[in-house]
Amino acid sequence: MSSRKDTAKTASASTRRQFSLPVEEIPRKWYNILADLPEPLPPPMDPEEGESRLSALPEMLIGECLKQEMSTERWIDVPEDLISLYAQAGRPRPLFRALSLERHLKTPARLYYKGEFYSPTGSHKVNTALAQAYYAKEAGFERLTTETGAGQWGTALAYAATLVGLRCTVYWVRAVSKWKQSRMNFMRLMGAEVFPSPSDKTETGRKLFEKNPDHPGSLGIAISEGLEDAKRDKKAIYSLGSVLNHVLLHQTIIGLETQKQFEMAGEYPDLVISCLGGGSNFGGFALPFLGDALTKGKKTRFIAAQSQVAPNLQGEYRYDFADHGELTPLLKMYTLGHRVDMEPIKGDGLRYHGCSPILSYLRSKGYIDTVAYPQDEKHVFERARTFILTEGFLPAPESAYSIACAIDEAVKCKETGEEKVIAFNISGHGFMDMEGYSEVLGL
Amino acid sequence: MSSRKDTAKTASASTRRQFSLPVEEIPRKWYNILADLPEPLPPPMDPEEGESRLSALPEMLIGECLKQEMSTERWIDVPEDLISLYAQAGRPRPLFRALSLERHLKTPARLYYKGEFYSPTGSHKVNTALAQAYYAKEAGFERLTTETGAGQWGTALAYAATLVGLRCTVYWVRAVSKWKQSRMNFMRLMGAEVFPSPSDKTETGRKLFEKNPDHPGSLGIAISEGLEDAKRDKKAIYSLGSVLNHVLLHQTIIGLETQKQFEMAGEYPDLVISCLGGGSNFGGFALPFLGDALTKGKKTRFIAAQSQVAPNLQGEYRYDFADHGELTPLLKMYTLGHRVDMEPIKGDGLRYHGCSPILSYLRSKGYIDTVAYPQDEKHVFERARTFILTEGFLPAPESAYSIACAIDEAVKCKETGEEKVIAFNISGHGFMDMEGYSEVLGL
Repeated sequence: MSSRKDTAKTASASTRRQFSLPVEEIPRKWYNILADLPEPLPPPMDPEEGESRLSALPEMLIGECLKQEMSTERWIDVPEDLISLYAQAGRPRPLFRALSLERHLKTPARLYYKGEFYSPTGSHKVNTALAQAYYAKEAGFERLTTETGAGQWGTALAYAATLVGLRCTVYWVRAVSKWKQSRMNFMRLMGAEVFPSPSDKTETGRKLFEKNPDHPGSLGIAISEGLEDAKRDKKAIYSLGSVLNHVLLHQTIIGLETQKQFEMAGEYPDLVISCLGGGSNFGGFALPFLGDALTKGKKTRFIAAQSQVAPNLQGEYRYDFADHGELTPLLKMYTLGHRVDMEPIKGDGLRYHGCSPILSYLRSKGYIDTVAYPQDEKHVFERARTFILTEGFLPAPESAYSIACAIDEAVKCKETGEEKVIAFNISGHGFMDMEGYSEVLGL
Repeated sequence: MSSRKDTAKTASASTRRQFSLPVEEIPRKWYNILADLPEPLPPPMDPEEGESRLSALPEMLIGECLKQEMSTERWIDVPEDLISLYAQAGRPRPLFRALSLERHLKTPARLYYKGEFYSPTGSHKVNTALAQAYYAKEAGFERLTTETGAGQWGTALAYAATLVGLRCTVYWVRAVSKWKQSRMNFMRLMGAEVFPSPSDKTETGRKLFEKNPDHPGSLGIAISEGLEDAKRDKKAIYSLGSVLNHVLLHQTIIGLETQKQFEMAGEYPDLVISCLGGGSNFGGFALPFLGDALTKGKKTRFIAAQSQVAPNLQGEYRYDFADHGELTPLLKMYTLGHRVDMEPIKGDGLRYHGCSPILSYLRSKGYIDTVAYPQDEKHVFERARTFILTEGFLPAPESAYSIACAIDEAVKCKETGEEKVIAFNISGHGFMDMEGYSEVLGL
C-alpha cells in the first residue's frame, strides 16, 4: 500500500480524486441509442406456436415503459417529479480517480470509477426502479411484482414502490435468498412481500417447487413468477430490472453523468468496462459512450466482465425467451438458452442466460468485447480486495467483476507502457454481501 | 406514504431536496471551540493516588493529536494530504431536505439531515480515523490499536490504517461483535486484527475474561485493552474514536460543511439534533453551530439523543476515568461512573459511561439538552422505519436515535404550529446492522 512517500505525492491531489456534479446537473433527458443505430434493432417476435406474447405486452409492461421500449427518439425527457426522486436518492453520484490503486499497480494507465454504490439500497438499480414505480403510480396501479437474483433489484424496487406509495411483491432466486438474510429483512422493512423462487405462489413456480422444495431457482424462473402474479391481478403490474430497452434507457443517467465528469477531468476513456448479467449497469454506463463511438467515430473499446457460469455474450445470437416459463416474447439476443442450468456463484446478478437486445446487437457488430472469469471467483475477489485495500470502497460481488477486468487491463498497460484512460462502473456496494467475501477469500 | 397528488407537488423540488458541495469546498480548517469558550475548559487531571497518567499522555496519544487536544487556536489547518484522503473517502457529504418525511408527518417544521452514511465504512468515524492514521504514519508508527463498540469506529480505523499503510488491532466489545459477523469480516478483509473484548491479550482483559469467557464487555474495558496493547509495543500507538477534544475537532468537518449547505438553502437551524454516546458525531455536527451560539448570539437549541441504558448527560458532572482499567487521566465530564454496568442495546455506539469534556462543559452551561429513549428501542426503531419508508435511507441503529428525536420535535411543531428548522445528523448507515432491525421490529 501507499508508503509515507506516496502520501506526500498526493498533495493538492484532492481535486483530482473526485469529480462531483451539483444536484442541478442531474441529466434532464435519457439517451436512447436506438436513434443512432446504423439499422433498426431486431424487434421482439412471437414464437411459431402458442398464444401471442406480443399482443399481451400491453398487459405485461407499464404503458409508458412500453412506449419507451419502441421509441427511436434520441433524447427522452426525465419527468420533473422523477428528477426530484433522483435528487432524493442522492444523484448525481461521484466519479473517482483511482490514484491509490494506480500507484499500487505501478501502471501508467489512469483509472476512473463511477460510484453507483452510493445508493440508498446499494446499487444502480434504483435508477430504473424509481422510473418504473413513478410511471406505474401515474398509470393508476397499486402493486408492483418482480423477480430478483442478487437481491439488488428487489431491494431497489421495494424502495421505489415505498417512495411513490405502491405495494411490492418480489420473487427471489432461492439459492441467493438463503445467504442474504439481511437483504431479505431490508426488503421487508420497506414493506415488500418476498418469496423465495421457485415458490408455490404461481403455476411456473409450483411445478418446480413441488418436485424440489429446495430448488435453487434462476432469474428466468423468477421472471416467470413475477409475470404470472401480475397477470392475474388487474391492479398489479410487472417490472423488470434489466435486459429491456427502457431499462437500459433509464440507466443511461449513469453514463451521461460520467461523460460530464470526464469533461471536468479533461479526459476521454479509451476503455469502458463493467460487469454484465442482463446488461442494465453495463448499458447504463456504456451506452452514451457507445453513442459517441457510433456517431462521433470515437475509438473507445468496451469490455463486459462476465462469469464462466453465465457467459451469455459467448452464446448464440438468436431469438430466445427472456424467461424460463416462456411468457415473454422472443428477443434477439446472445443467449445460452432460456432453460440452461447455471451453477451458483456469489456474483449472482451476473447469472442470466441472455444479454439485452441492444447490447447483443452492438456486440454482433463488433463494438463490445467480453471476458468471463472462472466459477471459483478467486481472481475476481482477490482483485476486489486489492481495490478495497487501496481505494477503500467495498464493492458488491458483481461489481468485483468490473474491478477485476479494469485491474487486468491496467496491468496489461504496465507491460506495454500504454497510458490508457480506463473507466469502470462500480454498480453496487457489498455491505450486505460479506458472506460472499468470507467464503471465497476464507476470512 | 406519498400519494399521486403528493408526487405532483414535488415538481421542481429537486434542487430543494439535496444540497451538495463540490469537492473544492472540503473545509480546509477544523473549528476549535476551545478558542470561543467563556472560560478555559477544565483540564485532564491525575488521580490522587497511583502513577501519573498525565505524564504518560505523550506515550498514549499521537503527538500531533495531543497538541491539538490542548490547542486554543480557533482554526486548525487540515493537512493537504488529508484533504486528498477526505476527497478519496467521498467528502463533502450531502445535506438533504426531508420533504417526504415532512409531508408524511404533516408538520410545519422543515427538516434537514446530513448524510454521513455515505461513507466508505458506513459512518462519520472515517473523519477522525483518517486524520489519526495520517498523523501516526507521519510520526513513524507502524501499527494502530483501538477499541470499538458498535463496530463503526473499528471499521473506520481499519480502513484508514490500510489507506495510509499501517497495521491495525481492534478490541471489540464482545456482546456486539457476536451479532455483527459481517462487520467483523469487513475489518479482517481490510487487514485488521480483531479481538472480542475482554480478551486474553491484555492484563485488564484477562482478569475479566478468565472469570467469564463470555463477558459481554464494554467500551471502557476495550479502551483499556487498546491502551495496554499499544503501551508495550514502541511501534504501536493507541487511537481513540470519540470523547477527546482532538476527535471532536476532526469531526467538525461535518458541521462546517453543513453550515455552508444551510447557506445554500437560505436557512439557519432552530434545532440541532444528534445521537450521543461519547460525543464525536454530536460534537462534529453541533460544535460549529454551538460556536455561533457562543459568539454570535444565535438562539439555536441543541438536543442529544441518548439511551436510558447510558444516559451519561443525566449523570454527575465530575472528574472520572475514561476507561474501565483506569489507565487514562481523569476527565471532567458528565458520567455514570467508569465501572457502571450497562445493559446491551442495538444502538451500542451510545453505550458509554461518559460524555466528551467539551460537550459536558457546554451542557453544564445550559447549551445542550438531552433526551433518553427506553431500552427496548421500539420507539426509536419505529421512528427509523418511518424515516426509511419516506426518505428511503437505512440508518445505523445509533443514528435511529437522532431520527427519533428529530421526528418527535417535528411532531411537537405540528401541535404548536411552529415552523422550526430542524437539522439532524445521520451518522451512519445500517446495512451491516439489519439484525438490530429484525429483532426490535420483528421482521
